[in-house]
Amino acid sequence: MTFSVLVLGSNSAIPTLTRNPSAHLLNASERLFLIDCAEGTQLQLRRYHVHFQRIRHIFISHLHGDHFYGLIGLLTSFHLLGRKEELHLYGPLELWHILRIQLDASQTRLIYPVMFHELTGDGRTGDQKTSRGKQDPGSNGRKQIPGTNLLYEDDLLTIHSFPLLHSIPTWGFLFREKLQPRKIRKEILNRLTIPNEWMNRIKNGEDYVDEEGKNYANRELTLDPPKPRSYAYCTDTAYTETIVPVIRSVDLLYNEATFMNDMAEAAREKYHSTAAEAAAIAKSAGVKKLIIGHFSARYDDLGPLLEEARVVFPETELADDGRVFSV
Amino acid sequence: MTFSVLVLGSNSAIPTLTRNPSAHLLNASERLFLIDCAEGTQLQLRRYHVHFQRIRHIFISHLHGDHFYGLIGLLTSFHLLGRKEELHLYGPLELWHILRIQLDASQTRLIYPVMFHELTGDGRTGDQKTSRGKQDPGSNGRKQIPGTNLLYEDDLLTIHSFPLLHSIPTWGFLFREKLQPRKIRKEILNRLTIPNEWMNRIKNGEDYVDEEGKNYANRELTLDPPKPRSYAYCTDTAYTETIVPVIRSVDLLYNEATFMNDMAEAAREKYHSTAAEAAAIAKSAGVKKLIIGHFSARYDDLGPLLEEARVVFPETELADDGRVFSV
Repeated sequence: MTFSVLVLGSNSAIPTLTRNPSAHLLNASERLFLIDCAEGTQLQLRRYHVHFQRIRHIFISHLHGDHFYGLIGLLTSFHLLGRKEELHLYGPLELWHILRIQLDASQTRLIYPVMFHELTGDGRTGDQKTSRGKQDPGSNGRKQIPGTNLLYEDDLLTIHSFPLLHSIPTWGFLFREKLQPRKIRKEILNRLTIPNEWMNRIKNGEDYVDEEGKNYANRELTLDPPKPRSYAYCTDTAYTETIVPVIRSVDLLYNEATFMNDMAEAAREKYHSTAAEAAAIAKSAGVKKLIIGHFSARYDDLGPLLEEARVVFPETELADDGRVFSV
Repeated sequence: MTFSVLVLGSNSAIPTLTRNPSAHLLNASERLFLIDCAEGTQLQLRRYHVHFQRIRHIFISHLHGDHFYGLIGLLTSFHLLGRKEELHLYGPLELWHILRIQLDASQTRLIYPVMFHELTGDGRTGDQKTSRGKQDPGSNGRKQIPGTNLLYEDDLLTIHSFPLLHSIPTWGFLFREKLQPRKIRKEILNRLTIPNEWMNRIKNGEDYVDEEGKNYANRELTLDPPKPRSYAYCTDTAYTETIVPVIRSVDLLYNEATFMNDMAEAAREKYHSTAAEAAAIAKSAGVKKLIIGHFSARYDDLGPLLEEARVVFPETELADDGRVFSV
């Protein structure tokens, strides 16, 4: 089953002909999640052959234009292309007003339902209000993650938001697959006739006892399910260790690296991170792989940013536009 | 002196990888005027090597997204790239609110001055209210153009708006060079010593009488100035003959041709024109050349639209992205 991230934009504020501003597409078992939507994102989706009507959920990290100026155009194209499926938007409340005023001005009434979910809490203070009143209750055997809000949950994954440290309220997003039931071995299914009512019990870890009272140990009947995979998206943000417990051990961390360390002062002033700082967070959190992006347009050659990060955290890659990272 | 139009987008509502939605750049003697600004226009300006900080005036025809969704991004890039020069925006008042709410949301205070000029009058009714209270008074020897509002005037040109016929209030724009003074022939300047105070009088058409009372006929002293050039931008609009007197005899007419004539019914319903209708307007108005654009994304091959128009008006060209039309 797919679990991959397509980079639709790797630049910071200003689009160039080679690097668009922020947008990522997560494909989790063919469910498509769009994260940020800079101007030009709908063209990037076309360029990389994404059937974009399949996107059901869009997450906007914050209201700097390089993260959402492409959203109204994408919503309009959904409409013009005859979309029927409902769309869920997650962002600061003001985003909804911005979309509404533009739709009203063009007298457009979208022909598909849009559900808006407000992100709350202040990215600067780490204040943890709930989104839609739901602080993650840690139900269904999930471990609660302090400092996060549960935005979404289905049979395969959960999505949480958490505050970042930026000049305006900004959220990161954590996508985690759920642990699936154990898999019954094929040869067992061929050999034994297991009554239907036992199937789920075995998948959930019970030993099987047949009609004659014979016991079959679960570990002999089943295989471990695939290891749940995870992805965290952290931009824009200054270096902040408050996010470390949230993103601990994720398979894939996207952390912004707007500048190199020789501009650490500018990074701090503008609440951005350097490549070395992104790598330091990845190291502290013990993630498997780091992707850096949100590059300042001043860097034509990104090699030095990659080198700077790899000194601290060797498993670092550049988020070039069009690149796919599969877990 | 340059008088040329660069097509930055030739598609209607939906951007594709080969055709961006509406935007034109008029270069009138190196003064740059942007007309409409669809999503992606700032990248189109980069693609076609325009120094976009030189744009001083931006005109938005109406508030359908394919004509203005790129404006907020362009304004933001001006800001981030350190613009100092003032910028003049012309559009429906609601546009200003849409820009403000987005700048406020990102806590952006533009570092350059923006002057907003409201377009008024209802595109559907042909109502002729003045913009900024200025109905064109026809001053300075200019002929007044009924049904237009004077938006801008400098030493070289005038810019007027006029209502089009669309589903929401929409304006066309007319750019006309002014008639310049007559030019004194070089050989005359070499042969005669003309006192300074006579120079402008001769340029304005007077005969010259020297100190000894000798009369020199103006037509022997001077050359005709260059013929003033003109360009009219008409999109989006259904076929309407009310614009014919406004755009009469322009050198270059851009008129939308969203559909072909086999979809005339759909065109009427959506207040758009067909290629044949664009050509009919060009013919009625006796323009020199017609450019058609704002093509529906349904047309991969634009050849048939061009053919349809040329049957009615042979001097028709397609507004391909990146194409330059010089007068």
